[in-house]
Amino acid sequence: MTSEENNLKADLRFFFMSPCEKYRARCQLPWKLCLQLLKIVLVTTQLVLFGLSNHLVASFKEENSLAFKHLFLKGFQGAREDGNSFAVYNRQDVYDSMFYAINQYLQLHNVTVGNYGYVQDENNLTALTVCKQLYVKSPPVPSENVNRSIIDSRIETVSLVFLLYCIGFFRLVQIEISFRLKGIDLQAFQYNELPDCYEFLITITFDNTVHSGIIKIFLDSDAAIQECNDWDISDSLSKSSHYILIFDVFIMLICLMSLILCTRSIILAISLQKRFASFFLRKYNFNVCLSDRLEFLNGWYIMIIISDTMTITGSIMKMEITVKNLTTYDICSILLGTSTLFVWVGVIRYLGYFQKYNVLILTMGVAFPKVLRFCCCAGIIYLGYTFCGWIVLGPYHAKFENLSTVAECLFSLVNGDDMFATFAELQEKSNLLWLFSRLYLYSFISLFIYMILSLFIALIQDTYETIKKYQEHGFPQTDLYTFLNDSTEIPNISRYV
Amino acid sequence: MTSEENNLKADLRFFFMSPCEKYRARCQLPWKLCLQLLKIVLVTTQLVLFGLSNHLVASFKEENSLAFKHLFLKGFQGAREDGNSFAVYNRQDVYDSMFYAINQYLQLHNVTVGNYGYVQDENNLTALTVCKQLYVKSPPVPSENVNRSIIDSRIETVSLVFLLYCIGFFRLVQIEISFRLKGIDLQAFQYNELPDCYEFLITITFDNTVHSGIIKIFLDSDAAIQECNDWDISDSLSKSSHYILIFDVFIMLICLMSLILCTRSIILAISLQKRFASFFLRKYNFNVCLSDRLEFLNGWYIMIIISDTMTITGSIMKMEITVKNLTTYDICSILLGTSTLFVWVGVIRYLGYFQKYNVLILTMGVAFPKVLRFCCCAGIIYLGYTFCGWIVLGPYHAKFENLSTVAECLFSLVNGDDMFATFAELQEKSNLLWLFSRLYLYSFISLFIYMILSLFIALIQDTYETIKKYQEHGFPQTDLYTFLNDSTEIPNISRYV
Amino acid sequence: MTSEENNLKADLRFFFMSPCEKYRARCQLPWKLCLQLLKIVLVTTQLVLFGLSNHLVASFKEENSLAFKHLFLKGFQGAREDGNSFAVYNRQDVYDSMFYAINQYLQLHNVTVGNYGYVQDENNLTALTVCKQLYVKSPPVPSENVNRSIIDSRIETVSLVFLLYCIGFFRLVQIEISFRLKGIDLQAFQYNELPDCYEFLITITFDNTVHSGIIKIFLDSDAAIQECNDWDISDSLSKSSHYILIFDVFIMLICLMSLILCTRSIILAISLQKRFASFFLRKYNFNVCLSDRLEFLNGWYIMIIISDTMTITGSIMKMEITVKNLTTYDICSILLGTSTLFVWVGVIRYLGYFQKYNVLILTMGVAFPKVLRFCCCAGIIYLGYTFCGWIVLGPYHAKFENLSTVAECLFSLVNGDDMFATFAELQEKSNLLWLFSRLYLYSFISLFIYMILSLFIALIQDTYETIKKYQEHGFPQTDLYTFLNDSTEIPNISRYV
Amino acid sequence: MTSEENNLKADLRFFFMSPCEKYRARCQLPWKLCLQLLKIVLVTTQLVLFGLSNHLVASFKEENSLAFKHLFLKGFQGAREDGNSFAVYNRQDVYDSMFYAINQYLQLHNVTVGNYGYVQDENNLTALTVCKQLYVKSPPVPSENVNRSIIDSRIETVSLVFLLYCIGFFRLVQIEISFRLKGIDLQAFQYNELPDCYEFLITITFDNTVHSGIIKIFLDSDAAIQECNDWDISDSLSKSSHYILIFDVFIMLICLMSLILCTRSIILAISLQKRFASFFLRKYNFNVCLSDRLEFLNGWYIMIIISDTMTITGSIMKMEITVKNLTTYDICSILLGTSTLFVWVGVIRYLGYFQKYNVLILTMGVAFPKVLRFCCCAGIIYLGYTFCGWIVLGPYHAKFENLSTVAECLFSLVNGDDMFATFAELQEKSNLLWLFSRLYLYSFISLFIYMILSLFIALIQDTYETIKKYQEHGFPQTDLYTFLNDSTEIPNISRYV
Repeated sequence: MTSEENNLKADLRFFFMSPCEKYRARCQLPWKLCLQLLKIVLVTTQLVLFGLSNHLVASFKEENSLAFKHLFLKGFQGAREDGNSFAVYNRQDVYDSMFYAINQYLQLHNVTVGNYGYVQDENNLTALTVCKQLYVKSPPVPSENVNRSIIDSRIETVSLVFLLYCIGFFRLVQIEISFRLKGIDLQAFQYNELPDCYEFLITITFDNTVHSGIIKIFLDSDAAIQECNDWDISDSLSKSSHYILIFDVFIMLICLMSLILCTRSIILAISLQKRFASFFLRKYNFNVCLSDRLEFLNGWYIMIIISDTMTITGSIMKMEITVKNLTTYDICSILLGTSTLFVWVGVIRYLGYFQKYNVLILTMGVAFPKVLRFCCCAGIIYLGYTFCGWIVLGPYHAKFENLSTVAECLFSLVNGDDMFATFAELQEKSNLLWLFSRLYLYSFISLFIYMILSLFIALIQDTYETIKKYQEHGFPQTDLYTFLNDSTEIPNISRYV
Repeated sequence: MTSEENNLKADLRFFFMSPCEKYRARCQLPWKLCLQLLKIVLVTTQLVLFGLSNHLVASFKEENSLAFKHLFLKGFQGAREDGNSFAVYNRQDVYDSMFYAINQYLQLHNVTVGNYGYVQDENNLTALTVCKQLYVKSPPVPSENVNRSIIDSRIETVSLVFLLYCIGFFRLVQIEISFRLKGIDLQAFQYNELPDCYEFLITITFDNTVHSGIIKIFLDSDAAIQECNDWDISDSLSKSSHYILIFDVFIMLICLMSLILCTRSIILAISLQKRFASFFLRKYNFNVCLSDRLEFLNGWYIMIIISDTMTITGSIMKMEITVKNLTTYDICSILLGTSTLFVWVGVIRYLGYFQKYNVLILTMGVAFPKVLRFCCCAGIIYLGYTFCGWIVLGPYHAKFENLSTVAECLFSLVNGDDMFATFAELQEKSNLLWLFSRLYLYSFISLFIYMILSLFIALIQDTYETIKKYQEHGFPQTDLYTFLNDSTEIPNISRYV
Repeated sequence: MTSEENNLKADLRFFFMSPCEKYRARCQLPWKLCLQLLKIVLVTTQLVLFGLSNHLVASFKEENSLAFKHLFLKGFQGAREDGNSFAVYNRQDVYDSMFYAINQYLQLHNVTVGNYGYVQDENNLTALTVCKQLYVKSPPVPSENVNRSIIDSRIETVSLVFLLYCIGFFRLVQIEISFRLKGIDLQAFQYNELPDCYEFLITITFDNTVHSGIIKIFLDSDAAIQECNDWDISDSLSKSSHYILIFDVFIMLICLMSLILCTRSIILAISLQKRFASFFLRKYNFNVCLSDRLEFLNGWYIMIIISDTMTITGSIMKMEITVKNLTTYDICSILLGTSTLFVWVGVIRYLGYFQKYNVLILTMGVAFPKVLRFCCCAGIIYLGYTFCGWIVLGPYHAKFENLSTVAECLFSLVNGDDMFATFAELQEKSNLLWLFSRLYLYSFISLFIYMILSLFIALIQDTYETIKKYQEHGFPQTDLYTFLNDSTEIPNISRYV
Repeated sequence: MTSEENNLKADLRFFFMSPCEKYRARCQLPWKLCLQLLKIVLVTTQLVLFGLSNHLVASFKEENSLAFKHLFLKGFQGAREDGNSFAVYNRQDVYDSMFYAINQYLQLHNVTVGNYGYVQDENNLTALTVCKQLYVKSPPVPSENVNRSIIDSRIETVSLVFLLYCIGFFRLVQIEISFRLKGIDLQAFQYNELPDCYEFLITITFDNTVHSGIIKIFLDSDAAIQECNDWDISDSLSKSSHYILIFDVFIMLICLMSLILCTRSIILAISLQKRFASFFLRKYNFNVCLSDRLEFLNGWYIMIIISDTMTITGSIMKMEITVKNLTTYDICSILLGTSTLFVWVGVIRYLGYFQKYNVLILTMGVAFPKVLRFCCCAGIIYLGYTFCGWIVLGPYHAKFENLSTVAECLFSLVNGDDMFATFAELQEKSNLLWLFSRLYLYSFISLFIYMILSLFIALIQDTYETIKKYQEHGFPQTDLYTFLNDSTEIPNISRYV
């Protein structure tokens, strides 16, 4: 055995060791592992802190939006439980609702219990605008005996400032009342934080696009966060935000370190793999197969790299949000959330070093491609049912209204949820549809629950038994492991960490 | 080996090849496969287009129906969540509701926000009719001390035009107010489509058939689509519908081609099967068994033929609907939907050509008859429970009111849905019924979930293991495959595609 | 081999034959089987007919009960969805509700849309009674500074006829307003049936037993069916009921026949078993073991006997109900329903004669005692959780209020239903209870779903594999079958049918 | 074989016998078993008795709390079904609600139907207090053009007695109206129990901490139980509570006996184990392994000891509660409930002595650590998903609002509950969030239901088969059992019970 071969073997063996074995072999502290564990604690703490302050902002917006609905919509009594929107059905109610909204706006300071203020433009005028969209020409009234009327699908927009003439309902497409209000989130005081100032853009839409005798009313409040410029802030308030920024920077440094270490490991792995492949080619005139090459590429490292990149990006965004430069809470929370998920999933890797946990993790790993492959088959039938249900039942039932809800409804049915409710909703239509819906639901549910879910269990069980047999009688050997195992020398020199 | 035998073997082997093997054997492009893949894309596109326009029509009708209820029913406040119908309970409310409906009809133009018009008959009179059904003779009032009153079950119908005398509630069976309104679906403008004109037949029924002190009020609006004859339509509108018609014709041609190809394959298969059978009879004096004969009949082709026939029929109906000759949306959508489902399911066939997917598809195929057979056994017990639950619990609980809802409720219970709600609904009756309902539900659910669902899993798992063993050690050989496999010559001449 | 032994063997073999084999052996028509199949059809028809008329009666009562609530309860707006009862909270509302009910009763004929009449007693007085229960002595008012008041738990009942003095709310236990109304179910006309007359006993209870500041109002309407004596009934009406009675008698005869045949089979089986046992004792000096003796006792026959007895009893009750002698719909429907369930389950026996169905039926039969045994183990833990949940969570949450609902709630949880709702309901209490409820629910659900349900599947799967192995390699032999199988003579004389 | 060895073996064998074997070996009545069975009956009876009286108290408090809401909150119409709290949205409503509450309090005796009385302090004044919290300095009104206002986060509390000046809504944090009422639970009379006197502390809070335009109104009623000191109680009432106290003492004695016996058994077991270990060390110079040592420590005894300790503590608390010294119903019910759960679970031990039940109990025992270990793996992924869902979806959806509800929601999803509702709730937000929520839910549900639940089944099934194989071919032998089984002498002298 040449010295080159011995060196290679020593390096390879060290490379495929678990942290415990490395520790035993070289008494080297597994500080990459420690770094990861520290990261879990830090990243989770950061997430919880961000989440708590985020929830305050969200609930403030939510409550203001609800308060506006109660203030400006006449007869509003809370969101409808059946998902229908707030609507009016006759002309008097349309006029009443409009005047009510405008009136409430005008006497806002006497009415509201919130801290709102008008937004004034450069001319010191408050900016309530009423704006209606009409068909340019009146479409033909169905009952009139006109001989030939010309249909014209163009729409014009007329803006009214504080004057409401008679609305031509035949031509009307929609009316929009919009105005701006200022607000301040005083609640932040109690958490020793800087209060945010808000500018709400409130839009009340009377929607008649369908022309079906219903005018739906939507109130939309868009909140923009602004810095409260003109105020002196007591010292204690500003200090607490400094600590948070420092903490974020610290997390970024930890993640950067972890990122660098993992990248280094991957680069070393690739170079080792090349060395191994060229050695094999030279000695045995034999190309190392792909699966052996992939053994070198540790999937966990890739996951850690992705997770670290997300944490760093997220932390930068979080800092920008803290100092009120950005308001993209959603993207930041998706970045931080996903990275935390990955960090936690990464813990499983360390559990896999224990023998007893290993069976389960190996089973999941081996069964995963099989399950995916089977999901693929089942998914095709599923897609067929989705399209079929959408086209036939869609026009009559809310649950089948668009493709995504059909997919969700079927997914719930497969997992045994919401079955009777779905049956009940598909009740009171024509006989043909009733029959179709029964055939559709019974066949779908039976097929998926009795055949496909059972097959999943069979798949997993088969894999579990295979893995257990392997653990008792040895795994099938690849070239790499055959090469590694036919020498017994303990490596003492290695460049790999 | 005779030349005839060689030819037959070559033909047979070619016949049972997968597209890939055929391609390798004869460098023949698998264009039947390509045609099917193209069909999936086209049929799905057609379905989505049809669905989108269909939903607009359906939502327009739905919203009008809701608008009518708010316009003509006094005190209507949205559909009741507990499924009960809208009803009145005393005489004054009946009169009020009737006059309200008539009054709203008369002043429709001042009240509604929709574009409705009266429908006038030849005498230029608007056609509101009030019509009541009465028992011919007044049934005996329970409290009167008449000695012998004669019960007469005949019913007479009295039509009132705009005059409402005192209603004799004792004799009253039902009152019906009906009238027609014209409408127009202006929304279509925004999608560059031709607007449809509608004639709504609105029927308000005061139902007293049960004579139980409740008069239920139903509003039924029947929408008939009519062409808007008298209008000039701008050019851009009419053009878009042309493109859709051309697209439909194109799909029909593709499906026709696929239909012809598959029919041809089946005919060739049958003739090959006959040749094979007669060869066997002649040479070995031996009748080929049924299962071998069925091997020739490819189930997938039959499914494609059914699917193609449905697509073609559906496309013709769709074209008729587009040009407003037909309004049978439901039948058309069932045809298109089912054919799309079949087309998608057909994809599984091509997945079966890959080794790894094959296990799953084979397992499902082999387990299917077993599961059906078992469903049969379980179904009988299920039917028994259905009848038993209907007769005993039916009179007291909405879920058990008719046989189909009992079946649905039990089906949901088997799959673990709606259990507590069902228990809770069967709560507050006599002790005997309470005890019966508990025995009934506990025994049914335990039997089905713990025994029958588990047996399904056992069935599938057993099949999966059998198939895996077959794949490793070879499938049991039939005469056909024995015949095929004992020669090694590669076929080079074949009439089969 | 002696002739006695031969005879015995022939008889035994014939006894253990399936109907098909008997037919082949003796060309004897399996008319017992035909009788059973006929019975299924007839019994199901009878059940459906009875159910349909039963539902009419039930819905009439239900609707009347609802109508009374709308008529006599002030402010009633349909049953509350949250299950709470109708209640008033201040004194004025109590007085208002009482006077409203009495007033509506007095002017009933002007108000109601139903056909109600007053019930008059012998003195021609209508019988509305108002009746209040009071504590004999006023309990101490909490705020009064009396030194020593004597608590007296006796209750007196004071009856008021049409005079309402000031109610002493401190002493009040409950007020009851009750009266009777006559009604007639005219709906029956439309089904060509005899109409029933009803006497409704309506009781409105103002319940103050808890003295908690809430007075709950219950309206209870008890309907008693009476024959409408004094009326001439047209001929066509009375005829249809005759046909039904004849049909019932026919079914009773069929069931009687089936009952006699099965009893005879069981008697013959017992005598054959005795003969066999004494023969064994004589010849081999050997007692036949219990399981062999039980082989003779066909469980299916016992089920048929029970089912027939129930059908006959039920049919007699049904006939009595048809001629209005009895009104025990509930007991009759339980008898007929259960017998129908048994008749349908009996069909499985005939499916067991086919080889392929047999595996499944055998598996279910063999697994049944194992599952029961395991249910027993699980049931004990279940019972412990039920008691524990009831005592701790009962006072705070409706679902845990009494032992039966706790059991139902836990049963639903085991089967994956209503989980989030249960968690959510156990939300807003003290921290200790919150923690306990979480531990309780997570541990219960995990234990039952992940351990016990999985064990059920393991049980069934193991049984299924055992049965399949038996079918391939033969069942374990008992003495009886060893005896039967060591001779090959075909029996030609047998007394057994 | 020495006499010492023989003695030890005899003692060991006797120690590891089941009660039946002990009975057969020494004709010794298994009175420890009888004691446990008696305990089950007694403890369950005690629990039911306590529960019944506990429910009365709880429902009285609950109903009073509801009555107070109806009395003092203007416009209250029952708890909102959508979980939102009762709230007002404009200034007039705040004033109205406050005056309404105070007014109702003043005329309480004319209004309420409950037996309430005012609580008077030493100055004979009724103690209604109105108290408001304000920011010390008015925060800046958003619209005012002040140059630099100073934000001051201090809050002052102002107490108003019956005088309400104009509320400064800008500065207002919250208003609190609180008063005390006396009540008496007369219902107890009907159960022959002593009536309790209550003092209710009612607090109505107008909460404006969020300053979002919504003022939430909470009514909190705190009930303190007091003895009704000044009353003569009739003799029959006081007697019944004596019997209950005697019963409790009896149970405590039984539990004490069981506690002593089990402690003695454990002490004997430990001494036997030491004897065995020292014998082994002496004779074979061999340390007994840990698992053999643990065989001596009977887990059931430890459970019984815990259960008995809890029952005794609980019974003492229950007696204190009966004589009205304590009101800690919750802790007492948790103690009694948990101990009853343990007592019932203990029954399983005795079932384990039957051969057929043993398989199941052994399987559960052996599978338990495996399932726990796997739960650990799954739990980590679960935790990752919990954090991720909370941070991203938390601000928008009630179900994801805090970490515990996220965990509960995901747990329900895993078990197939509430799936469609969760999908539907995550519907109407920005596209990015919609996409994220779909990915999140589909991946989570698929992973857990199709992979992890199936793996549970595989785990249990594998264990079940292992145990069955052991039962047929013998369990793996440990040193202890090898030692025990190589002698056949029947022990006749033993110190162990």
